[in-house]
Amino acid sequence: MAIEKAEVFVTSPGRNFVVFRITTTDGVVGLGDATLNGRELVAAKYLETIAPSLIGKNEDNIEDIWQYLYKGAYWKRGPVTMAAISAVDVALWDIKAKRAGKPLWLLLGEMEPEELVSTLDFRYMTDALTPAEAVEILREGQKGKAERIKHLLEVGYPGYSTAPGWLGYSDEKMVALAKEETQVKGFKQIKLKVGQNIDDDLRRLAKAREAIGPDVRLAVDANQVWDVPTAIDWINKFHDFDLAWVEEPTSPDDVIGHATIARAINPIKVATGEQMQSRILYKQYLQANAFGIMQIDATRVAGPQEIVLEYLLAKKFNKPVCPHAGGVGLCEAVCHFAMFDYVAVSGTMDGRMIEYVDNQHEHFVHPTEIKDGNYVAPTAPGNGTEMTLETAEKYLYRG
Amino acid sequence: MAIEKAEVFVTSPGRNFVVFRITTTDGVVGLGDATLNGRELVAAKYLETIAPSLIGKNEDNIEDIWQYLYKGAYWKRGPVTMAAISAVDVALWDIKAKRAGKPLWLLLGEMEPEELVSTLDFRYMTDALTPAEAVEILREGQKGKAERIKHLLEVGYPGYSTAPGWLGYSDEKMVALAKEETQVKGFKQIKLKVGQNIDDDLRRLAKAREAIGPDVRLAVDANQVWDVPTAIDWINKFHDFDLAWVEEPTSPDDVIGHATIARAINPIKVATGEQMQSRILYKQYLQANAFGIMQIDATRVAGPQEIVLEYLLAKKFNKPVCPHAGGVGLCEAVCHFAMFDYVAVSGTMDGRMIEYVDNQHEHFVHPTEIKDGNYVAPTAPGNGTEMTLETAEKYLYRG
Repeated sequence: MAIEKAEVFVTSPGRNFVVFRITTTDGVVGLGDATLNGRELVAAKYLETIAPSLIGKNEDNIEDIWQYLYKGAYWKRGPVTMAAISAVDVALWDIKAKRAGKPLWLLLGEMEPEELVSTLDFRYMTDALTPAEAVEILREGQKGKAERIKHLLEVGYPGYSTAPGWLGYSDEKMVALAKEETQVKGFKQIKLKVGQNIDDDLRRLAKAREAIGPDVRLAVDANQVWDVPTAIDWINKFHDFDLAWVEEPTSPDDVIGHATIARAINPIKVATGEQMQSRILYKQYLQANAFGIMQIDATRVAGPQEIVLEYLLAKKFNKPVCPHAGGVGLCEAVCHFAMFDYVAVSGTMDGRMIEYVDNQHEHFVHPTEIKDGNYVAPTAPGNGTEMTLETAEKYLYRG
Repeated sequence: MAIEKAEVFVTSPGRNFVVFRITTTDGVVGLGDATLNGRELVAAKYLETIAPSLIGKNEDNIEDIWQYLYKGAYWKRGPVTMAAISAVDVALWDIKAKRAGKPLWLLLGEMEPEELVSTLDFRYMTDALTPAEAVEILREGQKGKAERIKHLLEVGYPGYSTAPGWLGYSDEKMVALAKEETQVKGFKQIKLKVGQNIDDDLRRLAKAREAIGPDVRLAVDANQVWDVPTAIDWINKFHDFDLAWVEEPTSPDDVIGHATIARAINPIKVATGEQMQSRILYKQYLQANAFGIMQIDATRVAGPQEIVLEYLLAKKFNKPVCPHAGGVGLCEAVCHFAMFDYVAVSGTMDGRMIEYVDNQHEHFVHPTEIKDGNYVAPTAPGNGTEMTLETAEKYLYRG
């Protein structure tokens, strides 16, 4: 089969994002979206320049199309371009999963090691991970796979909640939400924003820890607010709270800075990644031991091809991946990769969980479901990004 | 005064680039351009969204405008966005230099340390360079400044030639050009492209070294062709040729990879930077000792504000900067920063030179002049990017 139509839409149900829709000659529709607050028009423009060149290509040659796009975009390798390529790649994998009648996580999880590795691009990666090592990791991941798929379908995959964490909330609201999210909804971790005022941070963290008790994990997120020296001073005042991690202490482009912070705040762990658009960055964070928790976003790097590679890198360097979510459709999209990792790569959920925000799920045909604090494993074929007809009619417009 | 008009043009005299033109209420015109092969339409689109917001702003509040643009663009911090911000910033500095009646290098070189540092943004920089350190460097640079300005106006600043270096050239043509550029035109360094075939490289390097003799510097440029292990193996076969540097051995995003290469190929030095769009990358290269030669491009980072900061960083870490040139208008633009460095920052030309390509200079009102292998110091007010009326009429069109 071949690609017959490639269309770009911009939507704005709450947050703005781009949808790339591919239709094959036999009528299969693949969807790829990218949350791009404030960048969606530029990404749409870029996707419109790409779209005509895809017509007539065999949509199953995912790696060839990816190479074509990635090489063409290499000199522009910024967040907008990578998100645009991601949207195309996600749509192609959506088609592949729909044809196979499987959710994306299962399609990826059941692919033969050699077949999956053959779709990956190892340029600039071989000092950290070779194709042979990737195959070896996936072969090792075959052991016990059937049991893990069964477990995933029965129990799901741990989520964590950022609902209590916003800086604007009163202490009372934060405490009430912390209790609700953990004691009622069953999340085993919450996350609070920090970094505006140290006294506020210390007071809020003490109250949050008291509210959730010692057994629930507590993480904090600074959203890149600090320079390196400030980050170290600030975070080192947090040692009493048994933190799971401190997220985005400084610019995500700063590997060396994060490595410096990570050494200086031990045993508190650094987490980052939601704003990284390049596997070359992830590689360096792993090589430099610059984070303890690796985070990924489903739409920021150049598609599933890059995400799969990043999970393999994380396994090689023995770091847990805890994906970023929260933007419209991100929970729906990113859980597939965490579940693929559990099934076929790391083989464990230990120290791993997916961010969860209870926001805008109603726009999707298969919205994320949470049960006892766990993401329910999606079973519908595809990648989970299909919007409801109602939402599409109301919000979708041509880019 | 204030900004009255802000216009975007796309041009294609040979290579495509964007011109951003600012006109003040009293009729001063500032020009900023960015070489953006294949990215110019996206950059133009972005600049068009920026332009209206600049109208009415005081064009002398360069730092405020820069902060406004940079903060607005932070989440899109890719090459296209940064080049677009650069075009605006370059145009503002062009106005400032024209009002002062000075070439940009002299305007920057004669600014008071505190005044210049007050225009810079140190976010994410303070683990490597603080404002106080920057002022101290510039104060130190005051000593002997008048003599250096005089020397620059009399002798110029060393250039080096890449004319002989293209891979498509026959050995005979390469040798003839190597002799002409060094023995006739007086360049003290040439550069050859490498990395396609090791036997070709070894043969060409032997012939080039023979042609130019032992006293002329010989550099090589791999244009990011290698992974890290391949780079190390390949470059370690070059030790017989007394190389000045090996340029872009791998992806410019890979600080750790370059540090690994730099250690493994010593005493051959690594050079890179022309494709780096972020001072956060430069900072890390310096901290990790990942290159021996720092290269900058005049239009890739977010304007003179970032370039000045990068020169100060290089001085702090005691690395020479050898700017990239070659694209249309790049020689004209980048020499101002090298000359500023000589006048006010490093205070030396030792191990420093500016790339030169004899290409498309005729489009500019004040084209780069070379004398005895040296860049002649520009004396016309402004930043040197003004195109001739003939070129503008022939090639310029609205973005």
